[in-house]
Amino acid sequence: MSGGPDRRAAWRVALGDVIYNSDTRAGRTFDLALIAAILLSVLAVMLDSVAGFRARHAPALRALEWGLTLLFTAEYLVRLVSARRATHYARSFFGAVDLLSILPAYLALVVPGAQYLLIVRVLRLLRIFRVLKLVRYLSEASVLTQALRASLAKIVVFLAVVLTLVVIIGTLMYVVEGPPNGFTSIPTSIYWAIVTLTTVGYGDIAPKTGLGKALASLAMILGYGIIAVPTGIVTVGLTQAQAGQRQVEVNGSTGRSCPRCGLAAHQADARFCRRCGEALSEELASGTA
Amino acid sequence: MSGGPDRRAAWRVALGDVIYNSDTRAGRTFDLALIAAILLSVLAVMLDSVAGFRARHAPALRALEWGLTLLFTAEYLVRLVSARRATHYARSFFGAVDLLSILPAYLALVVPGAQYLLIVRVLRLLRIFRVLKLVRYLSEASVLTQALRASLAKIVVFLAVVLTLVVIIGTLMYVVEGPPNGFTSIPTSIYWAIVTLTTVGYGDIAPKTGLGKALASLAMILGYGIIAVPTGIVTVGLTQAQAGQRQVEVNGSTGRSCPRCGLAAHQADARFCRRCGEALSEELASGTA
Amino acid sequence: MSGGPDRRAAWRVALGDVIYNSDTRAGRTFDLALIAAILLSVLAVMLDSVAGFRARHAPALRALEWGLTLLFTAEYLVRLVSARRATHYARSFFGAVDLLSILPAYLALVVPGAQYLLIVRVLRLLRIFRVLKLVRYLSEASVLTQALRASLAKIVVFLAVVLTLVVIIGTLMYVVEGPPNGFTSIPTSIYWAIVTLTTVGYGDIAPKTGLGKALASLAMILGYGIIAVPTGIVTVGLTQAQAGQRQVEVNGSTGRSCPRCGLAAHQADARFCRRCGEALSEELASGTA
Amino acid sequence: MSGGPDRRAAWRVALGDVIYNSDTRAGRTFDLALIAAILLSVLAVMLDSVAGFRARHAPALRALEWGLTLLFTAEYLVRLVSARRATHYARSFFGAVDLLSILPAYLALVVPGAQYLLIVRVLRLLRIFRVLKLVRYLSEASVLTQALRASLAKIVVFLAVVLTLVVIIGTLMYVVEGPPNGFTSIPTSIYWAIVTLTTVGYGDIAPKTGLGKALASLAMILGYGIIAVPTGIVTVGLTQAQAGQRQVEVNGSTGRSCPRCGLAAHQADARFCRRCGEALSEELASGTA
Repeated sequence: MSGGPDRRAAWRVALGDVIYNSDTRAGRTFDLALIAAILLSVLAVMLDSVAGFRARHAPALRALEWGLTLLFTAEYLVRLVSARRATHYARSFFGAVDLLSILPAYLALVVPGAQYLLIVRVLRLLRIFRVLKLVRYLSEASVLTQALRASLAKIVVFLAVVLTLVVIIGTLMYVVEGPPNGFTSIPTSIYWAIVTLTTVGYGDIAPKTGLGKALASLAMILGYGIIAVPTGIVTVGLTQAQAGQRQVEVNGSTGRSCPRCGLAAHQADARFCRRCGEALSEELASGTA
Repeated sequence: MSGGPDRRAAWRVALGDVIYNSDTRAGRTFDLALIAAILLSVLAVMLDSVAGFRARHAPALRALEWGLTLLFTAEYLVRLVSARRATHYARSFFGAVDLLSILPAYLALVVPGAQYLLIVRVLRLLRIFRVLKLVRYLSEASVLTQALRASLAKIVVFLAVVLTLVVIIGTLMYVVEGPPNGFTSIPTSIYWAIVTLTTVGYGDIAPKTGLGKALASLAMILGYGIIAVPTGIVTVGLTQAQAGQRQVEVNGSTGRSCPRCGLAAHQADARFCRRCGEALSEELASGTA
Repeated sequence: MSGGPDRRAAWRVALGDVIYNSDTRAGRTFDLALIAAILLSVLAVMLDSVAGFRARHAPALRALEWGLTLLFTAEYLVRLVSARRATHYARSFFGAVDLLSILPAYLALVVPGAQYLLIVRVLRLLRIFRVLKLVRYLSEASVLTQALRASLAKIVVFLAVVLTLVVIIGTLMYVVEGPPNGFTSIPTSIYWAIVTLTTVGYGDIAPKTGLGKALASLAMILGYGIIAVPTGIVTVGLTQAQAGQRQVEVNGSTGRSCPRCGLAAHQADARFCRRCGEALSEELASGTA
Repeated sequence: MSGGPDRRAAWRVALGDVIYNSDTRAGRTFDLALIAAILLSVLAVMLDSVAGFRARHAPALRALEWGLTLLFTAEYLVRLVSARRATHYARSFFGAVDLLSILPAYLALVVPGAQYLLIVRVLRLLRIFRVLKLVRYLSEASVLTQALRASLAKIVVFLAVVLTLVVIIGTLMYVVEGPPNGFTSIPTSIYWAIVTLTTVGYGDIAPKTGLGKALASLAMILGYGIIAVPTGIVTVGLTQAQAGQRQVEVNGSTGRSCPRCGLAAHQADARFCRRCGEALSEELASGTA
């Protein structure tokens, strides 16, 4: 939305202010009303799936769903019109979610059951962090995302090893236990291996022979140890992301080190270098003030 | 209980000493007797729920429960009377718990079954740490609480993402598996998604179709990775809380803070105060030697 | 075994050398033979419990168990006789385990079934680390033990909170679900709460009502978050124990800091102070050499 | 493949270039075709185990499996011929996997069902990281392997303790619950103990008596705490492996090591070489600025 002169007509600017800006009174009211409508809509989709409730309140539910869908369709069009750059909005994460939140309703006219996909509207609720000005939460979310992104390569390697393991363990169990004991095919056995290695353990399929139980025990102990790996990866990633963020908070952008001796990594409230006693620059000192 | 002149009558002061102070012989005896009574009461509530036991010992159990309830009611009133400030006590965590520990007994006269809520008395047992002078344990509890509080924003973001995930996964499974396979409604499917993502895995509901099993496998691997996130969050929070506490322990005694401005918590190799530039005392500098 | 003049007769010293010392050829042979006998004995106890195997091989199993028990009884007596101080051995961990490893056999003469407790012999196998000179493994074991001991207070507080939680959650579920749905009593419901909170999830008891499922979902998400706490505690404890051990390895006992500027925490191979360039003392430098 | 003069004929060198080198156009095409063939083969093995699919497409599956097996056999021979040193390749990890990937097909001529072991071909897919030049992923894999190797001694000690625990807990439950409640023998009870301690919890065997449930609760809480230990071990190992790698990355380029003795990996605030006492260059000192 930033950059370039604003060439929108006055009414589109005013509309955009209400829709995209939650600092004004009108914008705030609009956002909270929207979140209430989304909550109502998600609740309607859920209740629509409860057979007993649907039987009694089918017409009311149908009316509510269509009313909200038309409302959200109108909202989507207004967002497109009042955005500084329509394509920018349409391609953004929330732009895509907003579109996906109305399509299933129209799809349901052709494919029955598609209306349940309206549940994707729940993603729109994530806007609540921005609306309620929970900036602190958003910054924590970015620390989490950053930690996960930094650990991505390790996580991919880990998943490749786990997938290879479940394929081999699953096939071994298929050979050992076989169809009579519930391991009806290799894909089913792989499903069992995933259920076991992740320690979910439904028990819908379980080994019955002695050899199968021994093999399953090995798989469980393996899974028990393996679960430690992603935890270690995320913890290390999180420690680094957090340290990085603190560094940024401490040092701002300029004047990161002592002007006399060059020592860095000063504490957040430092005004004098802890090694040579030189006064640190104002920018640094006011970085956290 | 601190601050302000004490205007209580002598007998109320003496009573308060026995009840609130476990340093004296009388206070200690009172506290231990109280804990024994609470344990007995919790045991009585549990046994009352065992059909076979209740059938044989109903009158004895009833007498015991009412006896202890009257005792605890008297204790609550005495605590109110002998406290320096009755409202201060009534509003404290243990004041609220003490009240909640007697109300269900009277409520049970109107609503049958409410007496089981007397189990809330188990919370009163947490007093045992204070009574037994397990100060070290209380300080560890505060480190844990501090770590969790510092990680609160991250945990809220994490929970928001997890809740969004279970709603979407649950709905997808409802569409894929449907009522005949146990996924009778979206709320039930969301319950299944929580059971699966948290790796509990009861097995009361489990996918039966191939597509459902594939989707469930994805959800399990996701949950397997996701469980690493809160662990990472708590570990990082705990590391920081522990470091903070150690810092306080190190600098808490005299001669460990800046002689001019009194600032504490200097870095290990600091030779000058980071706030006022004053040279730090030798003792502090050699504090890490 | 250390300290004090050795007043044992020559034959007892020679015997003790074979039994307690695995450096000599005779001692090593004895230890390995002993471990083989223990393995055989544990295997015999296990096979004795398999109905089909016992039916066919009862006399052989009986003979083997009694033969090994008499052998271990003789060994225990010889250990007592040949130890430098019999009471020292009898009170040690392995002394107690050795005694417990023979008692159930004699107890089984009075109480049938007690022979299964002979499985406690499996503890004797832990001696294998000492026998095989896996010193490195023993030092790692001590790091683990130290980490757990340092975290003990935190773990006790954590367990107290978890136990309080399962009592309250279990009782709530008993009130909500009740006996018809498997929650037959408060103790059973507490058992369910433990099965759920630890994410084991057998599924032998599972909520059936909507409210019960909602409450169970809350408990699961709670348990999912709670499992992060002991992990964090152990990780922090382990980091510190490991750092402590490395510190000990690096600095030995004397001469830990720079003689001129007092800076500590030098790297393992440091021979000069990294701050002032002063030569570090030999003791420090040779600490890791 | 390195070292020693290359004595292969020109055609073997050219062949080796296509097979072992994925930098050339031909080599890359060969590698991608190979991976497609492996994927097809793994899929064929899986589908062969699905009864319905096999019934309809048995001849096609058979033809496909034999075709691919002959292809892989030819590839293995060509790899042997064109390798710089045939024995070097034959003994490498991928050499062994390549051989294991064809043997089961021939074994199946004698032992029916052995063809399912062809699933081991899935291991060949791990080559994809090298083929797709995902060097970053390989380096992350080496960090993970290094972390696990460094923690090996701790993990062995941990597993020894866990195995001892499950043997003892399993036997206790066998004595307490006995065959009528599903704990049919000590090995079966040990299997139950592993299922419980690893929090998998199938529910195929579950305690029915009060004492059994109490004991199981203890085991679960124990398992809940124990799972924290491998996580802590891996996290600490990973932190160190990562720190080591970063150190190498930082100091790897010129001007970051001691100008006199060349020692690298200096601490962040080092101004003098810790080995020879030489003043470190400004660049290094300001390396952290």
